[in-house]
Amino acid sequence: MGSIINCVAYADGHRVANIEIGEISNMLRQPDTFVWVGLHEPDAALLNKMQEEFDLHDLAIEDALKAHQRPKLEVYDDSLFIVLRTAQINDKTKHIEFGETHFFLGINFIVNVRHGSTLSYKEVRTRCERTPELMKMGPAFSLYAVMDAIVDQYFPVIEDLEQELLEVEEEIFGKKPTRGTTQRIYELKRELLEVKRVITPLIDICNRLMRMSTPLVPEDARPYFRDVYDHALRINEMLDTTRDLVSAALEANFSLTSISQSEVSKKFAGWAAIIGVPTMIAGIYGMNFETMPELRWTYAYPVVLVVTFSLCIILYAYFRRSGWL
Amino acid sequence: MGSIINCVAYADGHRVANIEIGEISNMLRQPDTFVWVGLHEPDAALLNKMQEEFDLHDLAIEDALKAHQRPKLEVYDDSLFIVLRTAQINDKTKHIEFGETHFFLGINFIVNVRHGSTLSYKEVRTRCERTPELMKMGPAFSLYAVMDAIVDQYFPVIEDLEQELLEVEEEIFGKKPTRGTTQRIYELKRELLEVKRVITPLIDICNRLMRMSTPLVPEDARPYFRDVYDHALRINEMLDTTRDLVSAALEANFSLTSISQSEVSKKFAGWAAIIGVPTMIAGIYGMNFETMPELRWTYAYPVVLVVTFSLCIILYAYFRRSGWL
Amino acid sequence: MGSIINCVAYADGHRVANIEIGEISNMLRQPDTFVWVGLHEPDAALLNKMQEEFDLHDLAIEDALKAHQRPKLEVYDDSLFIVLRTAQINDKTKHIEFGETHFFLGINFIVNVRHGSTLSYKEVRTRCERTPELMKMGPAFSLYAVMDAIVDQYFPVIEDLEQELLEVEEEIFGKKPTRGTTQRIYELKRELLEVKRVITPLIDICNRLMRMSTPLVPEDARPYFRDVYDHALRINEMLDTTRDLVSAALEANFSLTSISQSEVSKKFAGWAAIIGVPTMIAGIYGMNFETMPELRWTYAYPVVLVVTFSLCIILYAYFRRSGWL
Amino acid sequence: MGSIINCVAYADGHRVANIEIGEISNMLRQPDTFVWVGLHEPDAALLNKMQEEFDLHDLAIEDALKAHQRPKLEVYDDSLFIVLRTAQINDKTKHIEFGETHFFLGINFIVNVRHGSTLSYKEVRTRCERTPELMKMGPAFSLYAVMDAIVDQYFPVIEDLEQELLEVEEEIFGKKPTRGTTQRIYELKRELLEVKRVITPLIDICNRLMRMSTPLVPEDARPYFRDVYDHALRINEMLDTTRDLVSAALEANFSLTSISQSEVSKKFAGWAAIIGVPTMIAGIYGMNFETMPELRWTYAYPVVLVVTFSLCIILYAYFRRSGWL
Amino acid sequence: MGSIINCVAYADGHRVANIEIGEISNMLRQPDTFVWVGLHEPDAALLNKMQEEFDLHDLAIEDALKAHQRPKLEVYDDSLFIVLRTAQINDKTKHIEFGETHFFLGINFIVNVRHGSTLSYKEVRTRCERTPELMKMGPAFSLYAVMDAIVDQYFPVIEDLEQELLEVEEEIFGKKPTRGTTQRIYELKRELLEVKRVITPLIDICNRLMRMSTPLVPEDARPYFRDVYDHALRINEMLDTTRDLVSAALEANFSLTSISQSEVSKKFAGWAAIIGVPTMIAGIYGMNFETMPELRWTYAYPVVLVVTFSLCIILYAYFRRSGWL
Repeated sequence: MGSIINCVAYADGHRVANIEIGEISNMLRQPDTFVWVGLHEPDAALLNKMQEEFDLHDLAIEDALKAHQRPKLEVYDDSLFIVLRTAQINDKTKHIEFGETHFFLGINFIVNVRHGSTLSYKEVRTRCERTPELMKMGPAFSLYAVMDAIVDQYFPVIEDLEQELLEVEEEIFGKKPTRGTTQRIYELKRELLEVKRVITPLIDICNRLMRMSTPLVPEDARPYFRDVYDHALRINEMLDTTRDLVSAALEANFSLTSISQSEVSKKFAGWAAIIGVPTMIAGIYGMNFETMPELRWTYAYPVVLVVTFSLCIILYAYFRRSGWL
Repeated sequence: MGSIINCVAYADGHRVANIEIGEISNMLRQPDTFVWVGLHEPDAALLNKMQEEFDLHDLAIEDALKAHQRPKLEVYDDSLFIVLRTAQINDKTKHIEFGETHFFLGINFIVNVRHGSTLSYKEVRTRCERTPELMKMGPAFSLYAVMDAIVDQYFPVIEDLEQELLEVEEEIFGKKPTRGTTQRIYELKRELLEVKRVITPLIDICNRLMRMSTPLVPEDARPYFRDVYDHALRINEMLDTTRDLVSAALEANFSLTSISQSEVSKKFAGWAAIIGVPTMIAGIYGMNFETMPELRWTYAYPVVLVVTFSLCIILYAYFRRSGWL
Repeated sequence: MGSIINCVAYADGHRVANIEIGEISNMLRQPDTFVWVGLHEPDAALLNKMQEEFDLHDLAIEDALKAHQRPKLEVYDDSLFIVLRTAQINDKTKHIEFGETHFFLGINFIVNVRHGSTLSYKEVRTRCERTPELMKMGPAFSLYAVMDAIVDQYFPVIEDLEQELLEVEEEIFGKKPTRGTTQRIYELKRELLEVKRVITPLIDICNRLMRMSTPLVPEDARPYFRDVYDHALRINEMLDTTRDLVSAALEANFSLTSISQSEVSKKFAGWAAIIGVPTMIAGIYGMNFETMPELRWTYAYPVVLVVTFSLCIILYAYFRRSGWL
Repeated sequence: MGSIINCVAYADGHRVANIEIGEISNMLRQPDTFVWVGLHEPDAALLNKMQEEFDLHDLAIEDALKAHQRPKLEVYDDSLFIVLRTAQINDKTKHIEFGETHFFLGINFIVNVRHGSTLSYKEVRTRCERTPELMKMGPAFSLYAVMDAIVDQYFPVIEDLEQELLEVEEEIFGKKPTRGTTQRIYELKRELLEVKRVITPLIDICNRLMRMSTPLVPEDARPYFRDVYDHALRINEMLDTTRDLVSAALEANFSLTSISQSEVSKKFAGWAAIIGVPTMIAGIYGMNFETMPELRWTYAYPVVLVVTFSLCIILYAYFRRSGWL
Repeated sequence: MGSIINCVAYADGHRVANIEIGEISNMLRQPDTFVWVGLHEPDAALLNKMQEEFDLHDLAIEDALKAHQRPKLEVYDDSLFIVLRTAQINDKTKHIEFGETHFFLGINFIVNVRHGSTLSYKEVRTRCERTPELMKMGPAFSLYAVMDAIVDQYFPVIEDLEQELLEVEEEIFGKKPTRGTTQRIYELKRELLEVKRVITPLIDICNRLMRMSTPLVPEDARPYFRDVYDHALRINEMLDTTRDLVSAALEANFSLTSISQSEVSKKFAGWAAIIGVPTMIAGIYGMNFETMPELRWTYAYPVVLVVTFSLCIILYAYFRRSGWL
């Protein structure tokens, strides 16, 4: 049935008690009290229970059941439904793994629903409970705290991609670039596009949260969403810069391949000439004409050898100076 | 005369009866009742009939007659005219086929007009009739249901294009890319552009439907159009990512062709040197000078052979180390 | 003095009479009456006459005199001045020819001024006169009718460009692309840019006409301008798709040139090896050393021939398998 | 001290008198009177004088002193400060030269300040004075007249760049493109960017002038600024088209270089084969085996020659047909 | 604890006294008085002190503690928090160094916090104190003065990048471009992207400062922020132009590499023919047929030599004329 990670009531910013699902609707009737529920990959039954207790919209419940949404913020009559995507690097595979966290935010409740590989928000909750003066703002502050944690997890992802770019640069400009380099650049581009798709909608979501005129996000919580907004902008800028550099790296790689091709051609042309000239001369003195006076001259052979060798030296020097060899 | 697929009256969300076209205007006078007509490639006569019954605008009728419109939403005094384009993969040819569906939406009627290869909406209608509490919203819900079905049909199309991209990637990085690879990339680009043209205007249409302040789209129907909007956005993002990757794949393909060209040149240059050096030496000892003392030395021939062969070995080792061979 | 093509008064949507220029101002004083004047490349004198009769602005008259304006819509106190550019394919030269049509639209008059190679609007006028119920809307409907005719003429132009693209594609992927292909792509790009410049401002003009709150464009005429707007959008989309494909075609052409270059190199390298090896062996047995025991062996020659030939066969098979030959 | 080119008072649109700087503030007290001052590269002293007489803002004076501003329009309490950049082709060097003209526009005064290589506005002033009915609009009309003159000077600049593009095209497609062609394209791109920087902000300035609700720009002057706006738009479009074509030309040039490279390779490969085959055959019959029966056959030599020559002919025909030679 | 660089009270635009931090809150109670504090890399303790004295927001204090923010402007209830990034060229390393300056702006105070390598603002303060009539505007003028100083430091950075571009151009078109050129272009691109990231948000910040309706930025201070805005725009344009030219330079470099590759191929093909033809002829007369009548003719050898040499001359002339040699 999926699992309820946590279901806690808070009053005046202080933790009151762990409560059962059935008690939620009672609790919501208390003044200055809100309930924060944490779910992990819930099934339909559990979500329907939530829908009853909190009076949520059909479509939002449907979205929360199947993951694979794009990040979005939807306003229903008296609640918000928010989808965020999480990204983190798997310590073992070193690959980027994506997950999802959904939120139902009401005036006195917040439900967060985790899907896929995302960190637990236990730590975030603990940190929140240590600042009851901020928790007083209500569920919006819990929302901020989790969003902040999600966005903070993007930074190592970006840094990983930047590191990969540095290694690709080194391959391009330092070592000989190979077919593998091209494939690495392509993979890097693909990953950047995937991460971009995760982050771009987040900017808009934060922007709306900090401007929305609704009691769900109280006035004093806005600077906190602006803070998340700011981090999202920064991550986005880092992504864009990395993407521009990856494009530039591909072009540089291409340009260097072309230059290297040109160098090979020059080197080959130079040595072909140096080998071709003696071959031609030797061919001439290998002709079988009866009357070839030079052939009889005693010193002809060493002279021809010296002349030929000198020609080769001259050619070598010439190509060297022209930068062909 | 084209065909009337269906013509049904609904009251309070429940199916009342199949009715004749001639009865429509009577039926429309009933309170809480709406009529849902389904047409397939109607001719002018049928459309004119519809125009009379529902009091539609000349220009909308003209558009509904000839297909090949771009997706659009037009507001007339008391009705909407909507054009959507459908896309689906033909099971046999594996090609993408496009069709069109037009809608006339009034306060108590909806007419959908299918053109070209589109699925029948019989199933959609059946599903709608199973949720009379939603059908109560009126014809806007029928509109939503058909639009949702149309958008859902885009997903396999996109996945097909993504699959094609994966195969192209494998061709580029795994097997040797050929002229065919370039053509495949080009065809993929063309298909992406065509699908893009179908989907982009849809986003704007959904957006307007969910924001429009008109009794035609009641307040409680809006979250449903937002749902469609969201799917359209997601499809659009998938398309854009695929398009960016196709461009990157073309560049990668190009880069690898260039690297492979460079490798051929190096290999050729290396072997040319290894063949050229013995040819040159043999040429020298093939000269016909009378005085060439080496020629007379008994071991000259094997020594020359060994020296030449050693030179070839050295050259081979050198090129090997330089990565030319 | 340029020519007055037509000068007709309409009352209640019906043609009243051909009138003289001098009578215009009298006619304008009649209720429910409007005047439609058609000019072709008028000179200053004629335009000044028009200015007097219709009280037009200096700057608009100046623009109408010299052609080579960009498409635009200018609002003056009680009239509009519109510049549209026309495009059509010259039947003989198969080239695209551009022209211009200017409009002065007042509350009870419309003047259209043709410049350069544009079709006559006689047919449009005839068609308009057949629907007096629409002509009742006043001069805005005449404006629509001519604009519609102008936009309809763009479609064959675009189709011509699409056809040209198809031929270029066939050249690229089917036959061997040549220098001519590159030039064709370049010319196609140039034409697309020129047509684009003609059409893009039109979208904005239609958009403003269908939203403008002025008695010059009555409420019931707006759907008609929306229709033109829609056609303009469609043409624009076709242009953009074609443009994107032309870019893709250039890249594909480039990529194939590069692949073909690579193939040439491989083929050359392969054959060079197959010719080079016997040459080298023959060179060795052409050396003039006195002591070369093989030379004396009776079967040496056929053996060497067979060995050499076998080597060539092996090389050939090897290159064949590697895809070089 | 820089120079005062002109300082004239106008009343009711008619020139009244040349006045001294000291008289300006007196003159400004007259009703329906305005003063038009023309300066050329004024020094700080002169500008401070102006500041006193017209009560101008510190920052505007500072900007007017040092040139090298970007085109801009700044609104101060009761005056505008406008910076435009001028461009013209130096008749001798054929290079584009840039200059600047600044304007201070008040309700009853206009000061224009020329910097660098710009035409004198004497002629503009004379033309203005010939239309007192327009000069009645006040200093805004003078501003229009000078702006119009400045924008008119851009046209030959653009045409010069278009001409340069035509020549580059001819080099690319007609004659053999060289390294110089690439450099020309690059220089053309640089010039286009420079001119673009001059013109783009102008569009915004005109747009603001024609929409600004301020007594500084009277209602009847707005169509005039719209006219300038229109010219600026047209120039901008011409620039953009030229820029797109320059990019396309670079690509075409690149593509043709690549094709030409491919042709060279094919030609070389073909001739190498035609020379390589006889060399190989000759090598074989140059071997020194004692038992080579053919060598003794009387007609062997001519037969070999004929066979070899035939092989060459066949190869030539083959390469010819394949388009390699 | 980091350092307090300065802490000065100003009354009516005149410097009153250096004050202790503890006195600040007293001083702020004086009318027409404001306090300007300058900090350098303060620690948490010092910032908390500031927070107490000036009543600043937690999040702003947190941001001011850790540097590495993106440039931004945040509005809190009665104060602004601004982050700017500084850029300057290190005189020794010739590298661009980035730093940060943060501002807290209240109605009667301004705190600027420097991080990393930025110039001291001592000089700016001195200049401000020399114009008490402007300092009367309050802390907004101090803000302007420091922002102006920061923006002025960008100009030499841009000019340095433009200079680098000029050198790269010279390498591309003048000298032979090498692998190093490609890397230089890449590094230039990277630097441009970094500087761009610093400057782009600044434009928005200035724009908001000059439009914001808040007593923190008095009406008469706005033209000053417009001035900074204008400089930021100009720098941004210079950056964009440089960036476009760097892209064009990369393309030109690439195009020239390709042309140079083509030239090498032509040269090589030409000389290969000139060497190959005599080699072939010599080979033919080196065949050992018994019956080769030419071999016996006395003048055969010189005739063959002359003919061969002439062929070479003809080939040379031919290739020369074709531009291959």
